[in-house]
Amino acid sequence: LWTQMSRGTQSKFFTHLFIYFALGSRYVSKTATKTVSEFEYDAPSMKTAVPGPKSQELLRQLGEIQNVGAIHFFCNYEESRGNYLVDVDGNRMLDVYTQISSIPIGYNHPALIKVMTNPNNVSAFVNRPALGILPPENFPEKLFESLLSIAPSGMNRVQTMACGSCSNENAFKSMFIWYRNKERGYASPSEQEVGTCMINQSPGCPDLSILSFMGAFHGRTMGCLATTHSKAIHKLDIPSFDWPIAPFPKLQYPLEEFVRENAQEEARCLEEVEDLIVKWRQKRKPVAGIVIEPIQAEGGDNHASPDFFIKLRNIARKHGCAFHVDEVQTGGGTTGKFWAHEHWGLDDPADIVSFSKKLLTGGYYHRDELQPDKPYRIFNTWMGDPSKNLFLSEVLNVIRRENLLEEVTRSGKALLQGLYSLQTQYPHILSRARGQGTFCAIDACSDATRDSIMLKARNKGLFMGSCGEKTIRFRPALVFKEYHVHQLLNILNDILAEHK
Amino acid sequence: LWTQMSRGTQSKFFTHLFIYFALGSRYVSKTATKTVSEFEYDAPSMKTAVPGPKSQELLRQLGEIQNVGAIHFFCNYEESRGNYLVDVDGNRMLDVYTQISSIPIGYNHPALIKVMTNPNNVSAFVNRPALGILPPENFPEKLFESLLSIAPSGMNRVQTMACGSCSNENAFKSMFIWYRNKERGYASPSEQEVGTCMINQSPGCPDLSILSFMGAFHGRTMGCLATTHSKAIHKLDIPSFDWPIAPFPKLQYPLEEFVRENAQEEARCLEEVEDLIVKWRQKRKPVAGIVIEPIQAEGGDNHASPDFFIKLRNIARKHGCAFHVDEVQTGGGTTGKFWAHEHWGLDDPADIVSFSKKLLTGGYYHRDELQPDKPYRIFNTWMGDPSKNLFLSEVLNVIRRENLLEEVTRSGKALLQGLYSLQTQYPHILSRARGQGTFCAIDACSDATRDSIMLKARNKGLFMGSCGEKTIRFRPALVFKEYHVHQLLNILNDILAEHK
Repeated sequence: LWTQMSRGTQSKFFTHLFIYFALGSRYVSKTATKTVSEFEYDAPSMKTAVPGPKSQELLRQLGEIQNVGAIHFFCNYEESRGNYLVDVDGNRMLDVYTQISSIPIGYNHPALIKVMTNPNNVSAFVNRPALGILPPENFPEKLFESLLSIAPSGMNRVQTMACGSCSNENAFKSMFIWYRNKERGYASPSEQEVGTCMINQSPGCPDLSILSFMGAFHGRTMGCLATTHSKAIHKLDIPSFDWPIAPFPKLQYPLEEFVRENAQEEARCLEEVEDLIVKWRQKRKPVAGIVIEPIQAEGGDNHASPDFFIKLRNIARKHGCAFHVDEVQTGGGTTGKFWAHEHWGLDDPADIVSFSKKLLTGGYYHRDELQPDKPYRIFNTWMGDPSKNLFLSEVLNVIRRENLLEEVTRSGKALLQGLYSLQTQYPHILSRARGQGTFCAIDACSDATRDSIMLKARNKGLFMGSCGEKTIRFRPALVFKEYHVHQLLNILNDILAEHK
Repeated sequence: LWTQMSRGTQSKFFTHLFIYFALGSRYVSKTATKTVSEFEYDAPSMKTAVPGPKSQELLRQLGEIQNVGAIHFFCNYEESRGNYLVDVDGNRMLDVYTQISSIPIGYNHPALIKVMTNPNNVSAFVNRPALGILPPENFPEKLFESLLSIAPSGMNRVQTMACGSCSNENAFKSMFIWYRNKERGYASPSEQEVGTCMINQSPGCPDLSILSFMGAFHGRTMGCLATTHSKAIHKLDIPSFDWPIAPFPKLQYPLEEFVRENAQEEARCLEEVEDLIVKWRQKRKPVAGIVIEPIQAEGGDNHASPDFFIKLRNIARKHGCAFHVDEVQTGGGTTGKFWAHEHWGLDDPADIVSFSKKLLTGGYYHRDELQPDKPYRIFNTWMGDPSKNLFLSEVLNVIRRENLLEEVTRSGKALLQGLYSLQTQYPHILSRARGQGTFCAIDACSDATRDSIMLKARNKGLFMGSCGEKTIRFRPALVFKEYHVHQLLNILNDILAEHK
């Protein structure tokens, strides 16, 4: 089977559909023709309710070791393909959540299997280096051909890390170091600073802050967690920092009907940002950096206009704060551009851009001046994992070869169009359809209704994610085609029809 | 070559040496016989000074992307074997630092290459799951056969994480959650708690603390960093928490000559711990947990007696603080037992034991009551990496099959004996030889001398690590045999002889 899959590298997903699109009818005409990919399945296929008996038995076993309350079901990753996730009970689901948005080009992509089975790559998997002190020979080359080939505008430097939280923590640290170096006029730290930092006291450990936004999610380690404000369960009982939190715009939908209101809302939030920067300076906890997601993902898929971000970037510059754009969930092509911030159209969009998930390795890009002045200031044992860089290189090749960003734009339009349609048809259940590329979402009338729709969909072979209070979020892989969009809409439509 | 190595799984390292051991003479007799492992080299071999011209060119390239001040040289991991690290200039060094103590059974161990090339494992590498929601079928089984088979006494539960810092951060969070649940009498949190936690304020984000020790190193993310006190460069300019810091015993060597003084020193430190717990309770920042390394590694290989740890564990229990033993560097067999805390002989050594490095995956064990009461309290996207668990299973097989803990004990004795010898011979240069298993260290008379010895050793084919102010630390892999000990001692002896 594996050999067969390895040969499938050139597989294409071109799907030609004749779509008969009308309210209340099925989205895919019976006469549609399609060229199914060499290796992907063509549809969901369900054998049991989910979780099935095998998943339940494994849940019991794992429950002896860990809290299993968040587990949906156990997976057969060997049998999963492309957009289809297979569980241990033989259920095959269309997966539009993709391991919390972290599978870039679908399951078992032949190109990635080829990376694994290439003898030249064995050493990178078996000998994980301490990258900060003993990098492998091909490390600079691999960085140039992978991460630097997709560097955000104005950023030539990149630091890899193991995960999203690590990336944001170290990005914060870079901003603090940068800010204090500016304050010191790039002089050496005083003896007092060197001495007090060892015992967690000011001035060595200064009272600096990071400004974040309500509804934000930047991770759960303690620095990140102080900037995360999406759900209480993430934060309850954990000590935190007294850092400023600004409101994130709450846009009204449909956008074209609320142009004036939404502009006012964004202006209000920006004004609050400036007030907080001044207030925290007066409190002697100056804002070293501002961190924001281009779309608040965990917080409920909250969008703001490019104009909002452009003005925010200028506010950061005006007040001497670093501007950190967290693209851990939005990066990697899912919005139709490789980075969501590209939609703002700026040459100098940020001082730091962090990533993880679909990039397979964590890390962050930064402008030259954000590089720490000395070695060992930003450091840990592994500093990332070169085996993940190998996979990333190949993912980028596939994205380019198969024009996946164009595909995402096309599929995203079809998905959003379908969601508009559904909310028009079921206005008492659905509202606020929104999205960019396939990074789409829609709200249910309540959290209970949202959860019920999601469970019913899962049993019909559609696996979706949730976010915010009552939002369904769509996070398919980049190989999600119009054909899959229609499968998704069909299942949702069936459930909503029954729900009426 | 790869095929050849894959077939080498059964290779043994049995080394039979006739050792002629005397001050001032070479440690390995010319008549020694040895059975060199099927795949390992038999000695260092140097072609250029280190870093050589190729490393220097790569440094220049990488310098365009990152701060490269901490990089020693670039490596040819493909050509590295067992205890020998090969660089890009063809220099082959005996590596007793092993990627900051993170290579468990040497480079390119045939057993690990076999894991990589086993078709059944491909999926685990190619499809990284979100373990907290969609684990693979074999996840419970792999946990039982790997991590749980080496669980510390009294701990049946384990949570994997991506790295050491992540592990400690989440262990701290578990202690805070446990502590607050106790305080609340296991009732639901109040509305006020739920509300205030979203904006980083008390009581939702309570003023709890973790007690740590001067000289400690527990990682560099912001929670961990507040408990790290080994070097200023780690902490300068980063905001921190006002948490209590106790002195770690400064033992005098040789131990047998300072029995009374060292006992007094340990008693003084324990007294200070209790004082700090009381003081921080009065400050209304109660100590939820105590975190300590069994041997302070980055801080200078500082040891304390089993008696010290036994009493500290009791102090934690008496004051209702969780007791967290950080085995990120000491764990994995390097002290001659799988966990360094086993040397204390306790049935109930800790509430939490964290690990990473030689275990290849991060994570922590904990007692039942430290498990969070609800899902999603301890959570992130990946929650570890099953491909690392596969390697770990095989590492444990090799450790058992080849009796590596016994080997470590044997090599460790030879190493320590050799270090004693060297410091007797060169008392103006070396002092305080100490260690457990191969986790050994020796101090130089100054940091400059230490650094000079290390650079000379590197050019002669011996790659060592440093820690503390003027300490050389030895962190070989578990396949480090008496034969390698003598290579190491020979090189050191030659350098010291020239240094005189």
